[in-house]
Amino acid sequence: MSQAERPGIAPVALDGHGADGGVEAIAEGARIAAEAGVPVRVYGPSGTPTSPGVELVECDEWIANEEEPVVAVRAKSEASVVRAAADVAAGRASALVSAGSTGATMTAALFALKRIQGVHRPALAAQVPVPGGDGASVLFLDSGANSDVRPQHLVQFAFLGSSFSEAVLGVQRPRVALLSVGEEPKKGSAAVIEAHEALAEAEGLDFIGNVEGRDLLTGAADVVVTDGFTGNVTLKTLEGTARAVADAVRSASRSGPRAAAGGLLLRRALGGLRRELDPNEVGGAILLGLRGIAVVAHGSSSPTGIANAVLLADRAGRERAVDRTADLLSRSGATREALRESE
Amino acid sequence: MSQAERPGIAPVALDGHGADGGVEAIAEGARIAAEAGVPVRVYGPSGTPTSPGVELVECDEWIANEEEPVVAVRAKSEASVVRAAADVAAGRASALVSAGSTGATMTAALFALKRIQGVHRPALAAQVPVPGGDGASVLFLDSGANSDVRPQHLVQFAFLGSSFSEAVLGVQRPRVALLSVGEEPKKGSAAVIEAHEALAEAEGLDFIGNVEGRDLLTGAADVVVTDGFTGNVTLKTLEGTARAVADAVRSASRSGPRAAAGGLLLRRALGGLRRELDPNEVGGAILLGLRGIAVVAHGSSSPTGIANAVLLADRAGRERAVDRTADLLSRSGATREALRESE
Repeated sequence: MSQAERPGIAPVALDGHGADGGVEAIAEGARIAAEAGVPVRVYGPSGTPTSPGVELVECDEWIANEEEPVVAVRAKSEASVVRAAADVAAGRASALVSAGSTGATMTAALFALKRIQGVHRPALAAQVPVPGGDGASVLFLDSGANSDVRPQHLVQFAFLGSSFSEAVLGVQRPRVALLSVGEEPKKGSAAVIEAHEALAEAEGLDFIGNVEGRDLLTGAADVVVTDGFTGNVTLKTLEGTARAVADAVRSASRSGPRAAAGGLLLRRALGGLRRELDPNEVGGAILLGLRGIAVVAHGSSSPTGIANAVLLADRAGRERAVDRTADLLSRSGATREALRESE
Repeated sequence: MSQAERPGIAPVALDGHGADGGVEAIAEGARIAAEAGVPVRVYGPSGTPTSPGVELVECDEWIANEEEPVVAVRAKSEASVVRAAADVAAGRASALVSAGSTGATMTAALFALKRIQGVHRPALAAQVPVPGGDGASVLFLDSGANSDVRPQHLVQFAFLGSSFSEAVLGVQRPRVALLSVGEEPKKGSAAVIEAHEALAEAEGLDFIGNVEGRDLLTGAADVVVTDGFTGNVTLKTLEGTARAVADAVRSASRSGPRAAAGGLLLRRALGGLRRELDPNEVGGAILLGLRGIAVVAHGSSSPTGIANAVLLADRAGRERAVDRTADLLSRSGATREALRESE
């Protein structure tokens, strides 16, 4: 569907700063997304290239990785990610996408969009591709927003993930699992054991029990829940392994004439695997639990990665991910305690 | 050095039960180790094959994976791993090696060998190979003994790992890092942030700061410290990725005539990578912090894996790993608080 066929739709707000590939990668990603039918508004430096369906909001201030997110977001009201988030909150854009500082993106989104009523802590959900799974992926959360969690946070993450998986990723009755050190309910940290008990009794979601680190890539579950510390370490371990695979392929194809001959095949077959193992290729991590949509694209994203992040954000908006998440949460009772606390 | 050249040396006590490959894998692993000069005493069922340098202690009782470790170790004084641990404690064997239940091995070792004075919690240290690192490995702990830790436990793990790395693995002044979600000292869980502060001031070890999941395979540090929950999930994620690599290679080489032609090369180059990525190939995880040596070989270990575990245990004994660890710990002051607590 071209952009012309969707005249009234609000654009996705795309931060023009902070991508490793510079504003060129952003502009090219926006162009690809617009060509696929999603209008994009880029908050970038003057001179950022535009294309049909892509408009530019000139924005020279931005927040760098090194800056303390809360301090920077409060101080820099004209920073690109802050302005983009404000436009989403005001309804002038449908969703926020940034490949800049993860902390700044999460903070700007949280301040501007606010939490869904009853949500303790928003969580960052990454799509981890299942190798050989024909495009299937596991929704893995929290992948880095909350380093310390209580059991009830893990329970909410399960509901946030389940509703997003169903509403946006189109998984019917997603199988939800808790990441732990063994399948037995009593294995794991104290917080995980308590969350397991609560999830085993929870209604409105299909809890299949614990999975282990080795099950992440097998597609044993549609949604895998963990704390943001373990989640971040796990994803980066996967990423490091993907890189080790790529390096090994490169050096193998240089190891001799016979290897060089097989090198092309080697590179092609395993380049695909490397992409499949690299969670950053999918499009981005989604911040769940807010009253609006925010997607954190990886800073090293290619233009295709940026475009995928925009398409994901757009789809979340069209599928009413926020309303449907709020509905499921309130029906489940998983927010009851938080609501009591806030009374 | 053949066994005949080391007549007075105490054998390594090897649990004959619990390996996935059965007693045959154990017997073959023992034979390989003995041939390399390390005498082995196998605690296995009657009929277990022996070979020069390998003796059999007949032992038909054992502890299965499903059994609750503490209950089983207390109840089954004749179980193979319990008898093997008792012989190490009594000085009749130099070290304990088991490919059976990890929990039972840790429990039997803890009960029989006791903790080094001042050690809060023994930790399980795995050697993670560095791909392309010419046999280099990272000592990674805790890989699963303690799911919930306090900051002072992480600090002790750093000292336990550093002293083992230096004494047994021969690393001069090992670089010790803390696993976290970013390099900055203030990133991570509350426990990690507090441990970072203490380690930055600690004497007697070379603390290089935080590393991330993606740095695990690069050899950026010699010792990487984390809690047993994150450690277990991380190792199993690596293992799952290694398996995904192997599966992809297998299916790639079946994908067509051209791929089939390159298949042998593909399998050979990447079989090596798979082994390099699989922590189980190295020989086993060592339980650190006890007054004796215990090595947990992976249940799925090949005979070579079993033999490597025996050689590692033997080397730890010969290098006086326990005494040297105790020395470093007491000089470092990292045990002071624990000693105060126990007074």
